[in-house]
Amino acid sequence: MSGLSGKSLKSEHKISVRFSEVDSMGIVWHGHYVQYLEESREQFGLTHQIDYLTIAAHGFQVPVVDFNIKYRKSLKYGDQANIVCTYIDTHAAKIIFKYEIFNTADNQLCATAETVQVFINLKGELQLTYPPFFIDWKRRVGLI
Amino acid sequence: MSGLSGKSLKSEHKISVRFSEVDSMGIVWHGHYVQYLEESREQFGLTHQIDYLTIAAHGFQVPVVDFNIKYRKSLKYGDQANIVCTYIDTHAAKIIFKYEIFNTADNQLCATAETVQVFINLKGELQLTYPPFFIDWKRRVGLI
Amino acid sequence: MSGLSGKSLKSEHKISVRFSEVDSMGIVWHGHYVQYLEESREQFGLTHQIDYLTIAAHGFQVPVVDFNIKYRKSLKYGDQANIVCTYIDTHAAKIIFKYEIFNTADNQLCATAETVQVFINLKGELQLTYPPFFIDWKRRVGLI
Amino acid sequence: MSGLSGKSLKSEHKISVRFSEVDSMGIVWHGHYVQYLEESREQFGLTHQIDYLTIAAHGFQVPVVDFNIKYRKSLKYGDQANIVCTYIDTHAAKIIFKYEIFNTADNQLCATAETVQVFINLKGELQLTYPPFFIDWKRRVGLI
Repeated sequence: MSGLSGKSLKSEHKISVRFSEVDSMGIVWHGHYVQYLEESREQFGLTHQIDYLTIAAHGFQVPVVDFNIKYRKSLKYGDQANIVCTYIDTHAAKIIFKYEIFNTADNQLCATAETVQVFINLKGELQLTYPPFFIDWKRRVGLI
Repeated sequence: MSGLSGKSLKSEHKISVRFSEVDSMGIVWHGHYVQYLEESREQFGLTHQIDYLTIAAHGFQVPVVDFNIKYRKSLKYGDQANIVCTYIDTHAAKIIFKYEIFNTADNQLCATAETVQVFINLKGELQLTYPPFFIDWKRRVGLI
Repeated sequence: MSGLSGKSLKSEHKISVRFSEVDSMGIVWHGHYVQYLEESREQFGLTHQIDYLTIAAHGFQVPVVDFNIKYRKSLKYGDQANIVCTYIDTHAAKIIFKYEIFNTADNQLCATAETVQVFINLKGELQLTYPPFFIDWKRRVGLI
Repeated sequence: MSGLSGKSLKSEHKISVRFSEVDSMGIVWHGHYVQYLEESREQFGLTHQIDYLTIAAHGFQVPVVDFNIKYRKSLKYGDQANIVCTYIDTHAAKIIFKYEIFNTADNQLCATAETVQVFINLKGELQLTYPPFFIDWKRRVGLI
């Protein structure tokens, strides 16, 4: 359902709200979620052997080109959250992730988000097709 | 064009990329744009007398509930950017801004973004209609 | 040795360097250590029942008034570090912590630091003697 | 008084407290001052032609190895501050700056700080004597 192959690749990552992340309204400042999602994405990479350092070792960078987030319930100091990161398969030479952030205390959904990343080689050139190492990875995890 | 009234309210804000904002790829880390946009929004508030402290003085908070950004060209250390923030009028009890970030060196568009904010009163209740002070503001600036 | 009583109270906290924390020199930007140390201090609080929320529940805030850090070896993306936080007892109405940050890979010392915090009551008044709840805590953990 | 030569090199930099920099106590989180001081140091560099990009063009990096700050009065949202950055001359191959942060509203001193930076060449080697380009700079600004 979340991929072309019907296979769903996920990871989970827990965060604890830090004092410095809470603003004068007493809730996590909305900008800090970008960091939470990046941590979650890195956790996905470590879980599924496609982390940033592996990608860099193949000579590519994968900058975020599109970032969307909807905030539903705020998090406050002392809260813990569980972030579910799901890989969304696509034919385009992009990496798409969807995220759900849950407050671990009551399992309520706090935010949903999506990021799109592209492949850039060492010369800074945008790749219009998947680099071979990434096709290998997709094969290895059963997406193709 | 950008409002129900046809009237367009804008502000401009200049930022200089700071050393700590640049990541190991040598470009501004994508999360820092949330801060750039908030600065731009605050500048809009100061320009048009609807800044956060004024809103707080009326007993309301306006948390961001939706945040979207598309990155087109990266910014690097030493770059300066001009952020154009445009108020998008709506019938719903929301504050919508669109943003365009230009590299001041060549005036190229680096990113476009949109934020949606809602009104929360001191009890934390979501407002389904515009608070009176905000209607006054819209009248004052010619939106209604 | 680290306290008036000769008793040493410590905690340990592990951090993983995040992508956004690394600067264009490829190392953790020096400002992010303030966050690392605050996390470590919060871990101390949780370990020894003297966390920020407990302090706040007693009607006090404990802002940092003095912060010193010496950087010896840098941390880079992918590194993990272990932060040892040691409570330094004093007669003055202050909370003093010393910190040592070790790279977990080789156990090399990366940085040493010290923070001093004071007690402020709800009226914002600096306390010249320890608040009763804190004396109770010191007694409970065997410092007096 | 602030240099071996008796000559004092300074710069001034103004900052406006941003919403995201204020914590749940309603004051600027202490960690954000590291950023304020770096901005101030960059302003010194631009004012006196010794900015990071110039240093990098000569093949050196100048990481901060020692950072000390004393907080006296807090800053809150809406405040503006003026940071005076003073170069402290030394025989050692180091760059030392002292900082004073004043609230612009009442000119009260909010914080004092000091940073020490060293010279690292492209191979990552610590320099035990000033690089030639820096001696040239010191001569040009009248420090030697």
